Amino acid sequence: MLAKKHPSKLTDRMTFTLEQIASLIGGVLEGNPKGTVTTIQSIEQADEHSITFLSNAKYESFLYQTKAGAVIIDKAFELKKEVSTNLIRVENPYSSFTLLLEEYQKLQIFQRNGIEQPVHIGNEAQYGEQCYLGAYSYIGPNTKIGRNVKIFPQCYIGENCEIGDNSILYPGVKLYANTKVGRHCTIQSGAVLGSDGFGFAPQADGSYKTIPQVGNVILEDHVDIGANTVVDCATFESTIIRRGVKLDNLIQVAHNVEIGENTVIAAQAGIAGSSKVGKQCIIGGQAGIVGHLQIGDGTKVQAQSGITKNSKTDTAWYGSPALPYNNYVKSYTVFRRLPDVLKRIETLEEKLLNLGAE
Amino acid sequence: MLAKKHPSKLTDRMTFTLEQIASLIGGVLEGNPKGTVTTIQSIEQADEHSITFLSNAKYESFLYQTKAGAVIIDKAFELKKEVSTNLIRVENPYSSFTLLLEEYQKLQIFQRNGIEQPVHIGNEAQYGEQCYLGAYSYIGPNTKIGRNVKIFPQCYIGENCEIGDNSILYPGVKLYANTKVGRHCTIQSGAVLGSDGFGFAPQADGSYKTIPQVGNVILEDHVDIGANTVVDCATFESTIIRRGVKLDNLIQVAHNVEIGENTVIAAQAGIAGSSKVGKQCIIGGQAGIVGHLQIGDGTKVQAQSGITKNSKTDTAWYGSPALPYNNYVKSYTVFRRLPDVLKRIETLEEKLLNLGAE
Amino acid sequence: MLAKKHPSKLTDRMTFTLEQIASLIGGVLEGNPKGTVTTIQSIEQADEHSITFLSNAKYESFLYQTKAGAVIIDKAFELKKEVSTNLIRVENPYSSFTLLLEEYQKLQIFQRNGIEQPVHIGNEAQYGEQCYLGAYSYIGPNTKIGRNVKIFPQCYIGENCEIGDNSILYPGVKLYANTKVGRHCTIQSGAVLGSDGFGFAPQADGSYKTIPQVGNVILEDHVDIGANTVVDCATFESTIIRRGVKLDNLIQVAHNVEIGENTVIAAQAGIAGSSKVGKQCIIGGQAGIVGHLQIGDGTKVQAQSGITKNSKTDTAWYGSPALPYNNYVKSYTVFRRLPDVLKRIETLEEKLLNLGAE
Repeated sequence: MLAKKHPSKLTDRMTFTLEQIASLIGGVLEGNPKGTVTTIQSIEQADEHSITFLSNAKYESFLYQTKAGAVIIDKAFELKKEVSTNLIRVENPYSSFTLLLEEYQKLQIFQRNGIEQPVHIGNEAQYGEQCYLGAYSYIGPNTKIGRNVKIFPQCYIGENCEIGDNSILYPGVKLYANTKVGRHCTIQSGAVLGSDGFGFAPQADGSYKTIPQVGNVILEDHVDIGANTVVDCATFESTIIRRGVKLDNLIQVAHNVEIGENTVIAAQAGIAGSSKVGKQCIIGGQAGIVGHLQIGDGTKVQAQSGITKNSKTDTAWYGSPALPYNNYVKSYTVFRRLPDVLKRIETLEEKLLNLGAE
Repeated sequence: MLAKKHPSKLTDRMTFTLEQIASLIGGVLEGNPKGTVTTIQSIEQADEHSITFLSNAKYESFLYQTKAGAVIIDKAFELKKEVSTNLIRVENPYSSFTLLLEEYQKLQIFQRNGIEQPVHIGNEAQYGEQCYLGAYSYIGPNTKIGRNVKIFPQCYIGENCEIGDNSILYPGVKLYANTKVGRHCTIQSGAVLGSDGFGFAPQADGSYKTIPQVGNVILEDHVDIGANTVVDCATFESTIIRRGVKLDNLIQVAHNVEIGENTVIAAQAGIAGSSKVGKQCIIGGQAGIVGHLQIGDGTKVQAQSGITKNSKTDTAWYGSPALPYNNYVKSYTVFRRLPDVLKRIETLEEKLLNLGAE
Repeated sequence: MLAKKHPSKLTDRMTFTLEQIASLIGGVLEGNPKGTVTTIQSIEQADEHSITFLSNAKYESFLYQTKAGAVIIDKAFELKKEVSTNLIRVENPYSSFTLLLEEYQKLQIFQRNGIEQPVHIGNEAQYGEQCYLGAYSYIGPNTKIGRNVKIFPQCYIGENCEIGDNSILYPGVKLYANTKVGRHCTIQSGAVLGSDGFGFAPQADGSYKTIPQVGNVILEDHVDIGANTVVDCATFESTIIRRGVKLDNLIQVAHNVEIGENTVIAAQAGIAGSSKVGKQCIIGGQAGIVGHLQIGDGTKVQAQSGITKNSKTDTAWYGSPALPYNNYVKSYTVFRRLPDVLKRIETLEEKLLNLGAE
């Protein structure tokens, strides 16, 4: 392999001293404060460049073998043997570790700053401080981008869009014109917001005429959108994804849908046009919701189910078409035994025949 | 937020005078001909920048409150109170409104003209008048693009492709080499046409050898393709999407499939390799059609169904594996009652036992 | 249409002499060695620019009518009439034809060489000989790209990635930071590797806190990934796709999944978080596997099935939730007859009533 070196504004792999990490998580370091780590791994796999943690006693034996750069352990943990790693002692190793993961990810993303070249920036487009606009991204005219927004390379932001502070758009996200994205939103690669809704008027000759879709998509704050997920614009007015909604990958959200606060939807589910999904719902993977429904707050939909009717608050559904969860499970339990059920009927018929029934 | 302004060839938000709109839809204006609007909303939500319409008497009360820039109403409509908006009177408010939506969308798209920089244009590639080639798009060698084609930013058009007049490719569409797109087609963001079909020859050692896929994809005229939908190329020859077909988002069309005229397929459905779907079919969301089938004209497939057999003309299917629609509904009606059915059998068994049957 | 010509480093449509082709497939040419063809078609459709083959006697009549540039036929084949095409005689026409397809595809792809402009190449990024880096692609810092790797336009390769020799990334592929791709892998357009896993911790106020996902994705050698398929990174450590795995289009692979050697998964299937799929499995289209399962080697899953439990080696599954394949088929056979089954029960009840049972 040829080694060709090119300048870049992005920094290399990050290195942290154990001193820095102990201070970040409020821990007490036993070991070398100048020791460094660059990554995070499990205790089975950690090497000298990694920091790891011990939270579950089941993994204690790894502690005495590990070559990890450092291990986060419980304040009160008593060593049974010598260790050859550095220790950082904390109140709760798992939550310290999670905090570390968060900080690590933030650092990776928020070190990205400034405008890479080339970026297309339309007339009257605005962007705030500490923004990153990645190469080959396209910002349409009149679009307003808040502070500390990170737009990775190859994104498309159409005209008259708005993106709130601290939101992240990973590479290749596409926002059609007039899309509004709130603050603290994260949109994964390949997601499309604002594509034309699927509406057609049947014509006398059997063909379909496309109904124009001139509405938009609104994401409120703290919304996460998964990779290659699609949210269509409304026919007119808005398709709305409320505060705190989490959408996984490859989900279809059709035109004029509204998804209520803190609803979580797993991968490959689909919501058809004009359905309103309530707050705090949990929709399983590959589930489908037909159009023009009202799905009450707190509804739970099992994976692969098909919702065909309105659903009341705090109900649970399963099957295609979906039944109340417990009913589906009970029916399916009998379904599994249907060949046996059929035999029992045949036996009954035979016995009745023997009894001379007519 | 810092306001940074950049030049752009795209015009700002469009403004229309009421005079222009009345003339476009053949209506009679009651009000200020120089009044302007910039957008379109429902009568509940319209503000002074919006035009709206009143078609359903149910919404009449909004007419007397609205601050809309203008309202399209029926020629013969009699006002019961004063209004503070401008009126445009027409024969049929709803169809005038739809016409307006269409024109609005066309204007938004067709104002895009010319070649943004940078665009990669391959050797011998051609494009017609009034084309738009968006920044960071890539046009391969020998590709022919017709008149008034709008290729948004970040599209990839491989070598030897053809795109007919008046077609639109939204941002990030990818066409592999040799793809043919007809006239008046619309392809939404992230759609992929011509990716390699999924064909593998099992080898003696348990591995699979990839079968080369050297065919292409053909879209006839008036085809719409949804966001992130994938149409694979044929192994050799062509995967064909006939005139007037409408495909929603996130659909899978495998290699060597053919989809007949005016067939409509909802989001997340999948058609496996070499199946031929007839004309005027309606395939529901998340439905699947296995490979090498013949699906007759006018077939209807319920959402989430799985078609595993050939289907005759004008049949309807439901379930996985699919049964004739009515049969599935009848069976499922009993399925819902299976726990009760089982109890009835147990009762019968008990009664027979009491009768002394053997 | 205006003909505008632009220079390009890519060559035009390729032309081959029959001499070259006969030599490549080890055949004996009967005809004009200087004759040329540019493409490959079936014997029904081939024209003078095409080469085709005759393998199945059923198609023999086409041989005497075809205007194909050349036909590959069996060494021992005896002509019953005159032909107006050139013949290339070989041991096995079908496998010679497949070899030709492979070589044709390789030539199309491997003629792409060098760095198109503009490409963003990060600090310390490396790439080997005979690489193609397409326009508007983005290579992050510290990324290592092997020999003869073809990265089509508009790809994103994050920081610290590795791509092994002879791999191909089609237009618009996105690799998040730290993704490792083996040798001889092929990734179709729009695929996303390394997007954040879908993990959220419920908070007291009903909202969800995003759990940081700092792991990566590893593809071993000879892995094929379909268009718009998504593989999420691990929460920490790696989501692993083993040697020889073939994933079709629009598939969801969640965080911390592992897929064993030579497993084949059809379009639109989904594997939820932390599930381990064994070797040599075959997973049908639109099937789902819930999280945290162990799926044994050689497991077969029917299309649209939902796997909710661990699966032993060499088992087959069907239905949602899935049952052993044969059990589902037997139960479904009775399901189809449920209205009739219900009638038989009603008849039994009536007869028993007539017998005076209580």
